Amino acid sequence: MHVAQYLHIGEQRDSGRVMTVCAERVRTVAESVGRVARLAGGLRSLGLDAGDRVAILARNSDRYLEFLSACAWSGLVAVPLNTRWTVAEHAFALEDAGARALLADDALADSATRLRELCPGLAYLVHCGDADPGEPTWLRYEELVASSAPMPDAYHGGSDLFGVFYTGGTSGRAKGVMLSHDDFMGNSISTLATHRAVTPGGRFLHVAPLFHVADLAAWMMANLCQATHVIVPAFEPAAVLSTVQRARITDTMLVPSMLQLLADHPDAADADLSSIRNVIYGASPMTDAVLERSMELFPNAEFTQAYGMTELGPVATLLLPDDHRDPVRRRSAGRSIVSMDVRVVDPDDREAQHGVVGEIVVRGAGLMSGYWGKPAQTREAVRDGWMHTGDAGYLDDRGYLFLVDRIKDMIVTGGENVYSVEVENALARHPAVAACAVIGVPDSTYGERVHAVVVFHADVQAPPSETELADFCRASIAGYKVPRSFEFVDRLPISGAGKVLKRELRATHWAGHERRVH
Amino acid sequence: MHVAQYLHIGEQRDSGRVMTVCAERVRTVAESVGRVARLAGGLRSLGLDAGDRVAILARNSDRYLEFLSACAWSGLVAVPLNTRWTVAEHAFALEDAGARALLADDALADSATRLRELCPGLAYLVHCGDADPGEPTWLRYEELVASSAPMPDAYHGGSDLFGVFYTGGTSGRAKGVMLSHDDFMGNSISTLATHRAVTPGGRFLHVAPLFHVADLAAWMMANLCQATHVIVPAFEPAAVLSTVQRARITDTMLVPSMLQLLADHPDAADADLSSIRNVIYGASPMTDAVLERSMELFPNAEFTQAYGMTELGPVATLLLPDDHRDPVRRRSAGRSIVSMDVRVVDPDDREAQHGVVGEIVVRGAGLMSGYWGKPAQTREAVRDGWMHTGDAGYLDDRGYLFLVDRIKDMIVTGGENVYSVEVENALARHPAVAACAVIGVPDSTYGERVHAVVVFHADVQAPPSETELADFCRASIAGYKVPRSFEFVDRLPISGAGKVLKRELRATHWAGHERRVH
Repeated sequence: MHVAQYLHIGEQRDSGRVMTVCAERVRTVAESVGRVARLAGGLRSLGLDAGDRVAILARNSDRYLEFLSACAWSGLVAVPLNTRWTVAEHAFALEDAGARALLADDALADSATRLRELCPGLAYLVHCGDADPGEPTWLRYEELVASSAPMPDAYHGGSDLFGVFYTGGTSGRAKGVMLSHDDFMGNSISTLATHRAVTPGGRFLHVAPLFHVADLAAWMMANLCQATHVIVPAFEPAAVLSTVQRARITDTMLVPSMLQLLADHPDAADADLSSIRNVIYGASPMTDAVLERSMELFPNAEFTQAYGMTELGPVATLLLPDDHRDPVRRRSAGRSIVSMDVRVVDPDDREAQHGVVGEIVVRGAGLMSGYWGKPAQTREAVRDGWMHTGDAGYLDDRGYLFLVDRIKDMIVTGGENVYSVEVENALARHPAVAACAVIGVPDSTYGERVHAVVVFHADVQAPPSETELADFCRASIAGYKVPRSFEFVDRLPISGAGKVLKRELRATHWAGHERRVH
Repeated sequence: MHVAQYLHIGEQRDSGRVMTVCAERVRTVAESVGRVARLAGGLRSLGLDAGDRVAILARNSDRYLEFLSACAWSGLVAVPLNTRWTVAEHAFALEDAGARALLADDALADSATRLRELCPGLAYLVHCGDADPGEPTWLRYEELVASSAPMPDAYHGGSDLFGVFYTGGTSGRAKGVMLSHDDFMGNSISTLATHRAVTPGGRFLHVAPLFHVADLAAWMMANLCQATHVIVPAFEPAAVLSTVQRARITDTMLVPSMLQLLADHPDAADADLSSIRNVIYGASPMTDAVLERSMELFPNAEFTQAYGMTELGPVATLLLPDDHRDPVRRRSAGRSIVSMDVRVVDPDDREAQHGVVGEIVVRGAGLMSGYWGKPAQTREAVRDGWMHTGDAGYLDDRGYLFLVDRIKDMIVTGGENVYSVEVENALARHPAVAACAVIGVPDSTYGERVHAVVVFHADVQAPPSETELADFCRASIAGYKVPRSFEFVDRLPISGAGKVLKRELRATHWAGHERRVH
């Protein structure tokens, strides 16, 4: 399989179709194919060889998609970088991957300039923004496209690397996940075979960051469905609401925190979002309350939840639209996609019985080719062909996967295991609670104590007391799971992928203590 | 990817679901998993090693499916043999593949006994029928299953061989097409991602022979959809009609000649075939007349045409249900599945313009791992990553593929190229014509002459004359395409895959002549 194949198929079917819409820029299939072929030729003519890593540090744009396609076309290996990381983190990833070139846009140009100093292996900076980078040593993306001869598709594919995707920003030193063309496409095709959550020939809105493999998988599914890509530079609720209406968007992928912010936005009430047929959501669990509000916001949409991780290419399970009608199943992450075998094992890798919590392990199409330059960590993560996800969960007797926590986020209090998601679900139903995160904090009596970090809705006049919140939780969960302490904040720290950074929340509480990860 | 994965997923979701129905035998998922594990253990305990080839010569049955699964489970390579071949052809394939064991059922037991004499490498015969084979040296399938310890899934997969599929019965010496787990499953998953022509949790009727990869692909799609397999031993119209009604079949795969025989059967008029939601058809082009009658026969069915070949794993294009509503597109083979790039090239491998006939070439997920033991023929067929199909066709400006002929079946008459399918389509619309085949025969004036072999409906009282048929054709096709000679027969010679054997039809006419293949 070959990531750039969609361009050939697109050209064969309708070269005049719109391929990308990015603000005022509209490109047809024919234009996109030509630009990708010239960008590929331009990058290779710099002296970059097949297999060389080329990184990109940019907000979402049509050029981001062209760049990914040009890498696949020419055999270069794409390294998308998380725009929210620090310069030190970027430098680590660039050095680790041995990247020889970096593309950066206006918003990240300053970082890129510093990275060139920090990373001697970085031979080229390419400015892919619209403003003048002000640095004469930068190459200009549009000049590279305009001045280069198109190269024919080199047809790299199969087990050739498509990209190295850095992950682990929330858990220490980043690791580069290697995904081959077959890994990445095999997973997207399997996801589509399980449920077609993209409208053929539709208009897909890219809101989630393209540096994260979740939206990249959506990009590939949309490519396979010959859909048009509509791109906003980053998540901004008002812009998303207006773009959906203006472009009559049919499908999109969002993370739960985005859905919540859209529902909370003052423009939401008057927005006509009826064109949306599919909302794929995932990357982190969603509370029932947010799911219900999201379904009201998108009246004609079918909701599909995807669970996975970069190492899985990325999708492992889907919660299908029909499953959302079941009050129990809608709390699950759904069932394995057609190419994936998903199981739960105990610490000795023995399969757990239905209903018993253990570590989720996965094998099938999409499983990474390994961590870049880290064979030992690859062997530790992928044992006997099974990716050990580090997620705790259980399967019911129909194969539905219920996530209970990251294994490291599980709270052990007085000998009882408490899964933070369950407590968060209970707490989030309180009408004053806009968002919350539950963590374990050190406790002299219980070892760890259940602690809740809470954000109230902005319009709450009289916030509930700690006692009131605890009583509210006690009505739906066991006493030992109820938070024993609270913290009220204006916002939660969120990762680029929309996950709450519990490590950050825990940091102050655990200073001076050593936390055992279970 | 791993062909036997569906068993694990099936067990996780509902081990009590019915997996196979074969006459009176009904097996649940749990039974099937246990039997496959024991058959796998039994075969391996004979001394067969991973990678060894094990052939099967049998009509369709639940055991056929268990055998295929047991090969995947244990790492053995399945070699399904065409039941319609001669003993000499079987012996060639067994020797060519170096098969160490052969399974055969009641209908093929005599052949198997002779094959054991002809093929010294054949160490074991396993009788997978219900009658007593009468040969004490035969192993008994059910005894092997009952007496063997289950082996754990060895998880062969990826680029490991799943099977060697012999093809080319219609064009000389057979070649063994190697399909790996990834080839075979990648193609089925891609077909499903393009269009879900199997009902999730439905009941799939296996009518077409399982030795042909077309029905095997349907088997895999049904596995991915967690469907029940209902199996009839071979195509017999009355049995198919009654099984559909009794088992409330939801989906099936048929070849055009079967559809025609079903529509012609006296039981068809009273049969309630309303449970069928999907009919996948393919393996050879279908005339408009047969398609229309088939649509009447299955009133609730969506029709999906698949075009491909064993070497493609097997599907390359699908004509989707909606496409059937378009009078022009319904004559095409549809468009490429999501993982396949399908093009038309001239004899120098340059891409042809839209509308220009050339050879169809294909690359993507499913492309064979090569011909068994034939690297030179593999290189000849797969050039630069493109499988050269030997089929002639053209693409329209929306990527629809129109098959015009096997390149070797194209008729060159008076300097004009005539594609037999077009003439057959015209002729088949005549109400008296039940089936027809058009070939080129030697002609002293024109080089080749368009010649039609015609079967009339059984109830035709006054068959039309040659002149009447020629005039009928002239109303819809150009004069040089109209048959100049006719031949009236009771039935056409048909291959195991349902294709008319034009080589046989041509044989008598070309005795003493040398035919140039264009």
